[in-house]
Amino acid sequence: MSDNPKFAVIGGGSWATAIAKMLCSNVNQIAWYMRNEYAIEHLKLQKHNPNYLSSVEFDIKKLLLTNDINEAVAHADYIIFAIPSAFLSAELEKLTVSLKDKVIFSAIKGIVPETSLIVGEHFHNEYDIDYDNIGVITGPCHAEEVALERLSYLTIACGDEQHAKTMAKNLNSHYIKTKISDDIIGTEYAAMLKNIYAIAAGIAHGLGYGDNFQALLMSNSIREMKKFIRKVHKMKRNINDSAYLGDLLVTGYSVFSRNRMFGNMIGKGYTVKSAMMEMSMVAEGYYAAKSAHKLNESYKAKTPIIDAVYDILYDGKEAKKVFKKLTEKLN
Amino acid sequence: MSDNPKFAVIGGGSWATAIAKMLCSNVNQIAWYMRNEYAIEHLKLQKHNPNYLSSVEFDIKKLLLTNDINEAVAHADYIIFAIPSAFLSAELEKLTVSLKDKVIFSAIKGIVPETSLIVGEHFHNEYDIDYDNIGVITGPCHAEEVALERLSYLTIACGDEQHAKTMAKNLNSHYIKTKISDDIIGTEYAAMLKNIYAIAAGIAHGLGYGDNFQALLMSNSIREMKKFIRKVHKMKRNINDSAYLGDLLVTGYSVFSRNRMFGNMIGKGYTVKSAMMEMSMVAEGYYAAKSAHKLNESYKAKTPIIDAVYDILYDGKEAKKVFKKLTEKLN
Repeated sequence: MSDNPKFAVIGGGSWATAIAKMLCSNVNQIAWYMRNEYAIEHLKLQKHNPNYLSSVEFDIKKLLLTNDINEAVAHADYIIFAIPSAFLSAELEKLTVSLKDKVIFSAIKGIVPETSLIVGEHFHNEYDIDYDNIGVITGPCHAEEVALERLSYLTIACGDEQHAKTMAKNLNSHYIKTKISDDIIGTEYAAMLKNIYAIAAGIAHGLGYGDNFQALLMSNSIREMKKFIRKVHKMKRNINDSAYLGDLLVTGYSVFSRNRMFGNMIGKGYTVKSAMMEMSMVAEGYYAAKSAHKLNESYKAKTPIIDAVYDILYDGKEAKKVFKKLTEKLN
Repeated sequence: MSDNPKFAVIGGGSWATAIAKMLCSNVNQIAWYMRNEYAIEHLKLQKHNPNYLSSVEFDIKKLLLTNDINEAVAHADYIIFAIPSAFLSAELEKLTVSLKDKVIFSAIKGIVPETSLIVGEHFHNEYDIDYDNIGVITGPCHAEEVALERLSYLTIACGDEQHAKTMAKNLNSHYIKTKISDDIIGTEYAAMLKNIYAIAAGIAHGLGYGDNFQALLMSNSIREMKKFIRKVHKMKRNINDSAYLGDLLVTGYSVFSRNRMFGNMIGKGYTVKSAMMEMSMVAEGYYAAKSAHKLNESYKAKTPIIDAVYDILYDGKEAKKVFKKLTEKLN
């Protein structure tokens, strides 16, 4: 790989747009794939993504915009996937260019529904990518605040330290600080699990529980997350590091989080189906709850909060009753 | 002590009112001391505290209201102090009744300015009360949500398990769940330190930092708190339990927290003096920052957040510059 590695961003949403913005502070050109042709044309003419973070102005000379995923992948050494996990399989099926010798970074934070795997595992199992060439970009970081250039911290996890450093260096700027980690499995599970806890926070809010309970719920969530991740991949980690606790808090406390919003609707009495239709998009935590529940059949971690969310979303149990029982299990 | 222990609440503020309400669910009579004679008269006639949590209706037959602290103390076996720490010494000087054979619970969450001690240590050192007869009542719990009977969890810490259980039992209700702990020192330091971190959160907000940084700051705060408390009193504790992390979160994320509000004004450019005058009350964290800083001269824990707050509040350093430096130390 050259000293000036090339980057591609896969996705046209807000997080993809934020990452494209960060990279453009540091590199001369990035490939940027998005499905939406209109968005590409708009970007080329108006310098703004019309649909997401539309206040961000891009230097168009730096963007190799394409709606051909193969063109973007062929261009780059480092490929950052930032699309909803539900669409990942369909996008990857379009690939004719090999992913071998590429470094894959996931900015997805979800479970691939078809395989019930976190994104890193999916690439490893399905595409035979070495774990040293797989990484994770995680927050606490709302894309909206990247657009505003508000100071944010990212954790870049990769089995290969040099890859992590390269990615970190190219995301850094006066408003982005990065740290690296070797806990690729733990950070990705944390990023996935936090969405379930954000749904729980939303349900609680929708049911009328207050700030005191929210704090109690978050304090129980981080303890539950620690137990779960330790079962999945035991290693020395401080669960209160920003990639785990910080990421949980920014999602669990955000009124903008799609997962929290989805939970809030459930708490207010919407059915799962109507909440999904109302939002016209799927909250990542919805899939995560199913996958975590399934995984935990073998791990057997004590996860009353995940269980409660699962029972409500998949077993049709009444949120009010499930949470009443849940409150007895928390402390 | 009898099977039906008697309780006294010392204080007329919102937290004292919340505790009086909780006790009245369980006992036939409590003594309730407050300085304000008008508030006592209003309570007797109107059944509501006119100044705090004024929506709460009391069964007046259950209240032995007095503005003589000695009368309240003489009445009770368990005495709960819920006044600002800055007023504690002055109130205790009025005492002619002995505190010997009384069980003292602190619901104060601050440092006694005259002695720079947490309340439990103050009673132990200055009044020779055995640690087995000293306890702490801690959240996460905003008084306002107790008034609304929103589900809240309290931790009752005491050296003597039976005292903790008695207090817990008498605070319990359909909206209050309690757990007991033997970490009286740790919970009280946590309750004190969290106010400093809430000031830091307020300063950050006032300076224009966003939600991403707030999550990062809280994740650093709990790690810093853990280090500090471990130096003060090393024992096995899970810092993510609700009495530590939960209490930090409910304060650090609350827009109603006096400490966060005070910090916010500092961040927006008010001097310390003008922020205090504007608020017409003192934020507990103001004293806590000084005491923690002083204590840490011997403990030498690495506490960049406390140091930053101290430098701004007591060394007249500019908040913007101090926080800019602080951001380099967090991760």
